[in-house]
Amino acid sequence: MPELRKDPVLGRWIIISKSRGDRPTDFPVEGYQEENGFCPLCPGNEHSTPPEVLAFRQGSDAPNQPGWQVRVVPNKFPALIIEGDLSKEGVGLYDMMNGIGAHEVIIESPNHDESFIDLTPERMFQVFKAYRERIRDLEKDPRFKYVMVFKNHGKAAGASLSHPHSQLIALPILPRMIVSELSGAKSYYRYKERCLFCDMIRQEIQMDERVVCQNEQFITIMPFAPRTPFEMWVLPKRHHSAYCRQSDEELLLLAELFSESMKRLAACIPNVPYNFVLHTEPLRSGGMKHYHYHFEIVPKMTSIAGFEWGSGFYINPMPPEEATTLLRKSLDSAKEKTDEKDTAG
Amino acid sequence: MPELRKDPVLGRWIIISKSRGDRPTDFPVEGYQEENGFCPLCPGNEHSTPPEVLAFRQGSDAPNQPGWQVRVVPNKFPALIIEGDLSKEGVGLYDMMNGIGAHEVIIESPNHDESFIDLTPERMFQVFKAYRERIRDLEKDPRFKYVMVFKNHGKAAGASLSHPHSQLIALPILPRMIVSELSGAKSYYRYKERCLFCDMIRQEIQMDERVVCQNEQFITIMPFAPRTPFEMWVLPKRHHSAYCRQSDEELLLLAELFSESMKRLAACIPNVPYNFVLHTEPLRSGGMKHYHYHFEIVPKMTSIAGFEWGSGFYINPMPPEEATTLLRKSLDSAKEKTDEKDTAG
Repeated sequence: MPELRKDPVLGRWIIISKSRGDRPTDFPVEGYQEENGFCPLCPGNEHSTPPEVLAFRQGSDAPNQPGWQVRVVPNKFPALIIEGDLSKEGVGLYDMMNGIGAHEVIIESPNHDESFIDLTPERMFQVFKAYRERIRDLEKDPRFKYVMVFKNHGKAAGASLSHPHSQLIALPILPRMIVSELSGAKSYYRYKERCLFCDMIRQEIQMDERVVCQNEQFITIMPFAPRTPFEMWVLPKRHHSAYCRQSDEELLLLAELFSESMKRLAACIPNVPYNFVLHTEPLRSGGMKHYHYHFEIVPKMTSIAGFEWGSGFYINPMPPEEATTLLRKSLDSAKEKTDEKDTAG
Repeated sequence: MPELRKDPVLGRWIIISKSRGDRPTDFPVEGYQEENGFCPLCPGNEHSTPPEVLAFRQGSDAPNQPGWQVRVVPNKFPALIIEGDLSKEGVGLYDMMNGIGAHEVIIESPNHDESFIDLTPERMFQVFKAYRERIRDLEKDPRFKYVMVFKNHGKAAGASLSHPHSQLIALPILPRMIVSELSGAKSYYRYKERCLFCDMIRQEIQMDERVVCQNEQFITIMPFAPRTPFEMWVLPKRHHSAYCRQSDEELLLLAELFSESMKRLAACIPNVPYNFVLHTEPLRSGGMKHYHYHFEIVPKMTSIAGFEWGSGFYINPMPPEEATTLLRKSLDSAKEKTDEKDTAG
């Protein structure tokens, strides 16, 4: 049985979830591994995952068969397990609870070699819709306080499978990252009676130094204090604290801007490994005036991550204003190159 | 001029320090790079670093010449710069200040191929003494609030040079990690009127499940909620909040235990990349009743770091109690193997 344990100094919860391996260096993190070219996430191999909890299909409705565009399955080797009652326990001055939770894999495409960045906005929308549906469903379970949705792309960013997928973890506790954000945002709201993120968006649009792109409802900015070069945040322009309350129309506009942002990044740094994480309000919060949902996209430059990991402190060699300029130009220059090629050909 | 920028949501400070490179993927993080087999940290190449700020030599006292055992130099490509007055500035709702600070490299050995783990306790003591001397010196500068000492070993842990070295950064702000620790430790002290770390050590000795090794004054434990397999903390058994107030005798005992702990780790996972960070009280705090200095040693298993990086949440596949058992046995079994070999030979 996995365990949730709390660091008594920082209040940080971690999951202890024993791996199947015996050797101390044998740690399958996402559970799935491609073996001998067999991909458990490919169409035709639906039997090699637990039964799906959600799928978007055109035509036939038969579950666990090929024909899906997006498919969500429980992780076969989950970090937390879904069955059981939550029980809390003290061990002297320490706190722990049993590892109740959900760990699911969102398979973003039936095509093994396709990348998330390659998806059309319409297909990316299907992925975003799957996130929403799963959060709405898991929200009904009173044991869970938070659903964390994230994607690791590329080995350097922690992905163990190349088939395009993201993950979600439903947790009986609030991750420390969210606790800290809520607390910072609440302090600001108490002082100003305005949402910090709304103010940030207004200032960014006015200054126009870190806005990568925008459409009528969403905006992609580089944060003022980014951890790494090319870190990007995608936010709704109007105040929304809960991702799972977004309409289809809103998610389609989100997908359009997300797709453009990722394409700009890829045009600038081909094959970049990256992570993104959805930051949204805790389950059943009922809409928070001081919090604003958003995605944080963090490209992973290995050497820099190493520095941070060691020191707990981020050194970023590229001012976000310069990175913004590069990203703004990137699609145009990629287009120019194609045009040149066409002319040359 | 580098800049310090504050994330308005989390209160996290980051350094923006432009690299020399023009390409967006060209990010020398530690500044130094080995080129064509030339190592700027080797004896004989003292001219290729800025003049030393400290060195321990036997015999001759001439600075910036070979003959040193440990040598401390300013980083040639520092993340922060030492000259100038501290100036704070608001940019709308954002906060920043100019990047005043010190960034130094502690060269741990004259031998390029030696590893920190290979050092005898007496030589490791020289390294610990160098940390102390540098902190004491930098503490005199009223612009600095904190000195962060850390080591990255191995490429996966962010080291760009193989010559054994650690680093320090003197900062005009408190790193968020320390702010959080101080705040957690203070809450506990207010409630119990006891140091949280002292209580933890008492409980660990009593439970004896996560104690890796100890001597009369120091103890190495695995934390109850470790981020990664084999994470270790080395702490003084008696209450000490400030590393830089430790005596030579104490640092020698620290070095002995640190050396044993690292040798146990290396016997269990050969060539493991790792980081360690000194967690000590802010400069000129005058001794805190609620804080307890310690080293955190974090082995880096790439796939796991990737997961954390993406999700902001740690999943550790190995309970610290099992890792402790492995480390307790590790030196003995390595010894047995040598004995067997000797017998076989």
